Amino acid sequence: MSKFVSIRNIRFMIKEVFNSKSLIEYDYYSKHNEKMFDMVIDAALKLADKLMYPVLEEMDQNQPVLEAGQVKVHGAVKKIMKEFGRGGWIASGFSEAHGGDQLPFIIRGTASFIFAASNYSACAYPELTTGAAELITSFGSQELIDIYVPKMLEGKWQGTMALTEPQAGSSLSDITTTACPDQNGRYKIRGVKTFISAGDHDGVENIIHLMLARIENAPAGAKGISLFVVPKKRLDEKKNLIPNDITTASIYHKLGYRGTPATEISMGEKDDCTGWLVGEENKGLVYMFQMMNEARILVGLASCAIASSAYLAALEYAEKRPQGRPVTLKDPLIKQIPIIEHADVKRMLLFQKSIVEGSFSLVLQCCMYADLIKVSQGDEKEKYEFLLDLLTPVAKAFPSEYGIYSVSNALQCFGGYGYCKDFPVEQYFRDMRIHAIHEGTTGIQGMDLLGRKILMKNGKAALLFIEEVTLTISAAMEIKGLQFFAGELQRVMKLLEKVAGFLFNVAHEKGVEVYLSDSTLFLEFYGLIVISWQWLIQGIAAQKAMAQDCSKKDTNFYKGKFFAMNYFFRYELPKTLGLAARLMDDDNLTVDMKTEYFKD
Amino acid sequence: MSKFVSIRNIRFMIKEVFNSKSLIEYDYYSKHNEKMFDMVIDAALKLADKLMYPVLEEMDQNQPVLEAGQVKVHGAVKKIMKEFGRGGWIASGFSEAHGGDQLPFIIRGTASFIFAASNYSACAYPELTTGAAELITSFGSQELIDIYVPKMLEGKWQGTMALTEPQAGSSLSDITTTACPDQNGRYKIRGVKTFISAGDHDGVENIIHLMLARIENAPAGAKGISLFVVPKKRLDEKKNLIPNDITTASIYHKLGYRGTPATEISMGEKDDCTGWLVGEENKGLVYMFQMMNEARILVGLASCAIASSAYLAALEYAEKRPQGRPVTLKDPLIKQIPIIEHADVKRMLLFQKSIVEGSFSLVLQCCMYADLIKVSQGDEKEKYEFLLDLLTPVAKAFPSEYGIYSVSNALQCFGGYGYCKDFPVEQYFRDMRIHAIHEGTTGIQGMDLLGRKILMKNGKAALLFIEEVTLTISAAMEIKGLQFFAGELQRVMKLLEKVAGFLFNVAHEKGVEVYLSDSTLFLEFYGLIVISWQWLIQGIAAQKAMAQDCSKKDTNFYKGKFFAMNYFFRYELPKTLGLAARLMDDDNLTVDMKTEYFKD
Repeated sequence: MSKFVSIRNIRFMIKEVFNSKSLIEYDYYSKHNEKMFDMVIDAALKLADKLMYPVLEEMDQNQPVLEAGQVKVHGAVKKIMKEFGRGGWIASGFSEAHGGDQLPFIIRGTASFIFAASNYSACAYPELTTGAAELITSFGSQELIDIYVPKMLEGKWQGTMALTEPQAGSSLSDITTTACPDQNGRYKIRGVKTFISAGDHDGVENIIHLMLARIENAPAGAKGISLFVVPKKRLDEKKNLIPNDITTASIYHKLGYRGTPATEISMGEKDDCTGWLVGEENKGLVYMFQMMNEARILVGLASCAIASSAYLAALEYAEKRPQGRPVTLKDPLIKQIPIIEHADVKRMLLFQKSIVEGSFSLVLQCCMYADLIKVSQGDEKEKYEFLLDLLTPVAKAFPSEYGIYSVSNALQCFGGYGYCKDFPVEQYFRDMRIHAIHEGTTGIQGMDLLGRKILMKNGKAALLFIEEVTLTISAAMEIKGLQFFAGELQRVMKLLEKVAGFLFNVAHEKGVEVYLSDSTLFLEFYGLIVISWQWLIQGIAAQKAMAQDCSKKDTNFYKGKFFAMNYFFRYELPKTLGLAARLMDDDNLTVDMKTEYFKD
Repeated sequence: MSKFVSIRNIRFMIKEVFNSKSLIEYDYYSKHNEKMFDMVIDAALKLADKLMYPVLEEMDQNQPVLEAGQVKVHGAVKKIMKEFGRGGWIASGFSEAHGGDQLPFIIRGTASFIFAASNYSACAYPELTTGAAELITSFGSQELIDIYVPKMLEGKWQGTMALTEPQAGSSLSDITTTACPDQNGRYKIRGVKTFISAGDHDGVENIIHLMLARIENAPAGAKGISLFVVPKKRLDEKKNLIPNDITTASIYHKLGYRGTPATEISMGEKDDCTGWLVGEENKGLVYMFQMMNEARILVGLASCAIASSAYLAALEYAEKRPQGRPVTLKDPLIKQIPIIEHADVKRMLLFQKSIVEGSFSLVLQCCMYADLIKVSQGDEKEKYEFLLDLLTPVAKAFPSEYGIYSVSNALQCFGGYGYCKDFPVEQYFRDMRIHAIHEGTTGIQGMDLLGRKILMKNGKAALLFIEEVTLTISAAMEIKGLQFFAGELQRVMKLLEKVAGFLFNVAHEKGVEVYLSDSTLFLEFYGLIVISWQWLIQGIAAQKAMAQDCSKKDTNFYKGKFFAMNYFFRYELPKTLGLAARLMDDDNLTVDMKTEYFKD
């Protein structure tokens, strides 16, 4: 077991649960084999262990500073970007044509999980670069690809997502950064972007912003937003890098995630900031959402990752820390027992295990769908697309929200020590909190699920999901020890049907505002069901493995899986009862509440 | 409305809900009148506003340092201790005989709420001093009282609670600090205490530790612990202060609550640390629990207080921040609306309001019981004692646990800005997290409630609680608009009876370990019911007030109360369904789980 991830669990997930080697049968992934997958994971573990985990606390304690217009970051960032470029990590998911390895998302996602667990701030730099480069290869001209992508994949140039503006956070349709066409087919950019992660730093030679802006006279709102490449330094005629009139106005001091600067940048103060249009005009939001959807999966992954580090730290502590005695043996002369032997501590650890491993499973499921989309056609492809679309808000929001509680429970296991900087868990508590905010807040995810995904194509995605779950339930019904859980999931799927039916009726009778008013709670309700489904999938794999001959160590591992599944079904899934009761109460409470009633 | 508390709500609570002036009829409180109570509250608000809130962030950013064996704290601490001494705040609850004002707890608790909301770290110094001085006046000799109490009440000497040792956190029976009697009736103290808040600092002339230690040859465990006064500097024969051989070994760097140093102190390294026994030998734990019980109430109060500050900050922001449009009006040319108009934001604000004001109500209820204990006799006194004992773990744990979610929701209202130091909410998120840990973790409170309080004297306290709730339900049944809520509370009280019956049966059939294994969840379950009861009490007061002629402003306030009560009953109380389902599942899951199953 490493300090921050369970290697045994990773193996279980990508081999025994998701059988990732089945992807090798497809042409696109055929140059890989299972051994290579293992090597990738091992290499990721080594890198995380040697390069990233050792600077976890340092990067938190020595935050980026803005000096003379330049953001300076911890020295490790330069090494990390270099190593991620050299080792092909930034490029691994790209097609061979673009210099990548065509590595399946389930494998590079696992690597990403490992990196994020070791040091989330550190892994954000290369990951943002991957996302930005992907946008260029997907929608940019060959010229843009040639100029930018190789340098980015080498880790020499940093990529960013420059969406948010001070007056436009969740409401992207209100962005005001302008792009004015010049005679050379380029654009003059003017505006301010805020909360741009890695928006400037001295660990790379250049910063490449994938930026949303409005071309002059574009239609109002979301339909008038275009995507641009706006580099910090642009190439002049002689191919020298010259400043592109972007100023870093400020950096934010944050609760956590401190190793990565969040910057406010200003473009075109001297009217000399050039941008290059990516793809067609006014399609910026559509393009950006390709990146955004993957970014949301990665946020889910990072949430499980931080919760994983916190969980393993709590587990290690709980095994070593003596405190108290069994409730039935209060004799003070008896030696104290490790706190892991107290039922309440086991409960907290099981909670964490069930959240970490249940969420990780869901995110890998999404990665697998993404991998299958790439290699399938027609109805099959459509099926995976629907399922991925439907589950993306859940994979983003559930781990990031329950992750807060999970890390809070980890901290609690340490008692007073958890509140102190002597252990990294207080940092995990701070780092974790970003994930329910960035890449679309939980509220936005709820609206996406209930207002869009559940409804799309007459509920086709939702029906496909029911089919998937039904398959899992049927399989589990055949396996000894799983019937109870299969039955519970079946029962709760009926409850889901009832709740959804109720809400559709609300939409019909009371309109969309009331229908959407509890969408965040619906998201939680749906999330609990989705994670139970993932736990049942894991339960099937564990029970099957235990039916074979297996070592004592493996048996313990599978029993742990069984207990964690059990825990999720018996402690977490019952929360759906309260949520369903609430969701089927159409009192319009939050809609009717008025601002003045909050007043003193 | 101040920045950190709702003054209108405070008035509502202490006048309209708890009618605190009724206490004046008792001799002990008879020198007060309602106007004086108002003046106390006003003075507290002024002090908090002028002296404490302005240094909230500074005290967080400039943490205490240990230099040459001396802890140095923010300069404001000296002023605050002086002002709290001069203004009689430290002494306010003491009897006149001890130099106090005999101010009821409900009033000084409200002042404490105001102070904690303005700056929790700052108010910890005088509050710890009050608690320590109370222990001396309750159980110490006249000599100890004369030497220590006046200086402490003047704010010149700091009081502390020195319980925890590195190897004995929650398990107090394992403390090893020793006290060896000398010829003068004093004791030589040796040992190490850790996490001692305000255990050393330069804002006062002396530090007075109320310390648990074992007298040589005392019985093992809890029965062999005595209470001592152990000053940092003791008086020599000439009444000069000389060092008492206490060394500050280190200070902790904490997640939050940074303005108050948590110290590790070492006594008797030169064999010259003197302690004075308080009361009788081996009764230390019993004495300490007087202080501890009040400290737990104060932790509950501080939890509501921090959640209050965060809530009001979120409310202010939500009213000012434009973002997005009504879900039915997506035209981008329409002006953006303040986020408070979105149902999901109102839901988050109502959640916070319901937690802050519901919890505050419970804590004030406990203060009121404490006030009544002081002035009543016989059965009546016993009734209040039972109710206070029963509700103390709830008043400590519910606000501190739900407070974490409440502040997290406040942070979420700010979006990305909530994660940055531009607003104080990220500090509140860090400060809040201590409360579920200190003065007995949530797990300890759960064991206290289910393992001790519910059972004491054959469940007498639990029955008295049912009687109280039944009275409230009957009153609410008579009032228009409240029947639904009264009915809900009645229903959930039956559920409580069912759950408790089930658990008693578990205790009988499976033993105490299984019975107690979900005590933390039982505490949450019980807490939701208790807070609903408090909301119904508030609902009665609000409906009665609205039935009178009242101003537009007051009507808005009462409607806000009604919505918040409604919110709690319709969004939070349904959580009891899932908790009850879990609590009535006697699968022994966490008891059966084994350490080795957690392993890789």
